[in-house]
Amino acid sequence: MTLRRSVVGEIPGPVVRAAMARGRLDLQAGYRALVIDDAKSAGCFVVDLDGNVLLDLFANFALGALGYNHPRLLAAARSDAFVRAAVNPTSTPFVTTPAWLDYMDAVERRFAPRGMARMFCVDAGGEGVEAALKAAFIVHAERRRRAAGRPASPLELSANEQERILANAGTDAVVIAFSGAFHGRGLGPLSATHSKVMHKADLPAFPWPTAPFPANRFPLAAHRDENEAAERAALVELERLLDAHAGRVAAVIVEPIQSEGGDRHASPAFFGAARALAAAAGAAFVLDEVQTGVGMSGTLWAHEQLALPSPPDLVAFGKKMQLGGFFAAEPYAVTQFGRMYQTRNGDRARAQLSLATLETIIDDDLLANVRATGARFLAGLEALAARHPRLVTEPRGRGFLLAFDLPTAAARDELLQRAMRRGVFASYTGVRSVRLRPHLITGAAEVDDALAVFDEVAREMSA
Amino acid sequence: MTLRRSVVGEIPGPVVRAAMARGRLDLQAGYRALVIDDAKSAGCFVVDLDGNVLLDLFANFALGALGYNHPRLLAAARSDAFVRAAVNPTSTPFVTTPAWLDYMDAVERRFAPRGMARMFCVDAGGEGVEAALKAAFIVHAERRRRAAGRPASPLELSANEQERILANAGTDAVVIAFSGAFHGRGLGPLSATHSKVMHKADLPAFPWPTAPFPANRFPLAAHRDENEAAERAALVELERLLDAHAGRVAAVIVEPIQSEGGDRHASPAFFGAARALAAAAGAAFVLDEVQTGVGMSGTLWAHEQLALPSPPDLVAFGKKMQLGGFFAAEPYAVTQFGRMYQTRNGDRARAQLSLATLETIIDDDLLANVRATGARFLAGLEALAARHPRLVTEPRGRGFLLAFDLPTAAARDELLQRAMRRGVFASYTGVRSVRLRPHLITGAAEVDDALAVFDEVAREMSA
Repeated sequence: MTLRRSVVGEIPGPVVRAAMARGRLDLQAGYRALVIDDAKSAGCFVVDLDGNVLLDLFANFALGALGYNHPRLLAAARSDAFVRAAVNPTSTPFVTTPAWLDYMDAVERRFAPRGMARMFCVDAGGEGVEAALKAAFIVHAERRRRAAGRPASPLELSANEQERILANAGTDAVVIAFSGAFHGRGLGPLSATHSKVMHKADLPAFPWPTAPFPANRFPLAAHRDENEAAERAALVELERLLDAHAGRVAAVIVEPIQSEGGDRHASPAFFGAARALAAAAGAAFVLDEVQTGVGMSGTLWAHEQLALPSPPDLVAFGKKMQLGGFFAAEPYAVTQFGRMYQTRNGDRARAQLSLATLETIIDDDLLANVRATGARFLAGLEALAARHPRLVTEPRGRGFLLAFDLPTAAARDELLQRAMRRGVFASYTGVRSVRLRPHLITGAAEVDDALAVFDEVAREMSA
Repeated sequence: MTLRRSVVGEIPGPVVRAAMARGRLDLQAGYRALVIDDAKSAGCFVVDLDGNVLLDLFANFALGALGYNHPRLLAAARSDAFVRAAVNPTSTPFVTTPAWLDYMDAVERRFAPRGMARMFCVDAGGEGVEAALKAAFIVHAERRRRAAGRPASPLELSANEQERILANAGTDAVVIAFSGAFHGRGLGPLSATHSKVMHKADLPAFPWPTAPFPANRFPLAAHRDENEAAERAALVELERLLDAHAGRVAAVIVEPIQSEGGDRHASPAFFGAARALAAAAGAAFVLDEVQTGVGMSGTLWAHEQLALPSPPDLVAFGKKMQLGGFFAAEPYAVTQFGRMYQTRNGDRARAQLSLATLETIIDDDLLANVRATGARFLAGLEALAARHPRLVTEPRGRGFLLAFDLPTAAARDELLQRAMRRGVFASYTGVRSVRLRPHLITGAAEVDDALAVFDEVAREMSA
């Protein structure tokens, strides 16, 4: 049964509101936007308890990949293999099953980014970024010790040095991240996160420097000189920071598109130059593909479109991948026993959903859909901006990572509210941007429908 | 079909060794101890690919709760509700389902520790500890600002202060943890972790102080004066650290039993005094129950046995709970929008397994089993120590959190190897301790069998 956008009353309506009053133990009970019927939701449509059918362009902050109740995922989840993995969690590094080895072999053969030799799995994207940064710090420190003629392994350090490590004598190495970046909420990734005060306020932070991110202005053709100048200036500052911390930069970390920070883009040339600067400084170049990875950009990994001079050293993943973690080029494969470990290094149940997701993306040619339908959506947003130039500006996107700006946060929130009341569920990012994250299966009809709703809302707001 | 311990050949045998050669993409391929048949494994017996049937006293670092393929968990995982939750992950704070609200209401009514008003869910235990520490820092900072007549919310800070926060001007507040503690591998929890150099080496750390943990010597009756003196000294030092950092201690964090650090115990009186000192200093008292919680101690939460003068402020959970997270007393409920959030705040599928686990523990009276069978196991270990006094020392335990020491790490590892070859799978902790973490369903017959194997091994090693 194919669903269609349909609003039967208020959102949230009476049944959802009654449900929202329950579950008050949940610290985040105040965050609730929707209570859904996960049996009735299907494809890119989410159905709430009141029977409203919403076109879901939010997809749970890009967590959703194949839409609701995809037949391949349902089949995977109903298999005995999945049930056994779900009810028998193991500490996968130590105790594993053939299904886990199948997953690893399939990812290696078909889905890992080019140049990546190893994969490390945790539960979620933020943890994956954190683990990637840990690998960067470890390799960096071991190289420094080797260069000084000292042992690489911590086990060969003096008793006094080991005592100091246990007492929190941490490394003086740093991570360079970019202004506006979001790399997660853990206390490590947070020191590389610079998107919102609310993420960081009142928490401890490491003294890591920030390079300016040269957010491109759109349309690119109209802002070429300005964008090139901003990118040159950002690279000069990155180089200055690398010099100022010479020998102490373990990693430079960047998102292919700054998602939480406002859907901010930079050119492939910028990423290529940043990658080369990191390499020259002996720093790991870490790409955070938690939100951009797994098909969202129109390629399996967004950085395939960045024309890097050499592969990244580490690539963090999460969200649609079903697991968090990172891929590592061989030099960053930290294999010494006990160095990189968490009890849940690889949820074997989620790995089966991950494999089904990745296979479906390829088998159903969803990358081509994302490219074609994403281009259609972007062209529609550009037309929308042309029709409503004082309201809708800077439409931008790569695949299904789409956004546009409103004049103010209040106008953006009003547009989102009005769209929601018409059954189009989109989200916010940055200060005054609308973030669109369609499920990978979203088709031209849905995109045209969403564009028509945005146009209606813009006309209302302009009236 | 009930399984029995049965070793048919080498461990690992030829089929497992062939499997281990696969999946080399896995960064931790070198960690593998077992490749199991998760269809044949049942109860507290794990079956490897060669057909060896092992009594599992390891339980994946205490991750395992109800043993393998428990009928109630199988039924839960085969339900449509579970399948839908698994294939439709949401960012649960924003988009949720009635099943999630049912979970919250059931936990509130039946399973939350006394005095806890709120629950925050992430994926795994380490993240749960980290989130609990974040809540402690936030509440502490807001109180400091209020006391200074300033606004609590970061949104009301000056533009200059907000700029500094984005540029990593972190709080100067600290967390006090104990020597030998393990609170997780993230860069925040790691600064409270002091168990092994390999966990911390080469990574950045926060300058947080360490209080000495007064690890009790066993048997308690023979070491009463020594233990009391060590606890008094530890409390004096804790008080000195609180004074030295007056007004800057956001949290004191402790495990009811130091699990990764060597199964080290302290008395209820010690915990009660530490709790009172934290309260007097305005610091959150955080209990890390990731390994000790969910029935393992013979009560649902180990701290029920600690006779605290008032409930803890925050209790972190993970492992057997199926989710990670924390419970918070009302003053530590950080509800301001955007402060505490991760995309995966509550895997709705794992929540259903969590609920089935918790209900089974109560319905099948597994807490009584843990108390009775745990006492039987401990008595058996005491008899083992009496028979092999030069090999086995300091048997200790609370419920199914059991351990004993060998003279050296090498002797400990040899005992574990020899037991494994006989089909008893146990684990290590600390420097030279054997860690036993039976599944909650383990019965007297299995315990007696394990004790007979340990006795055989000890006799061999003494010969």
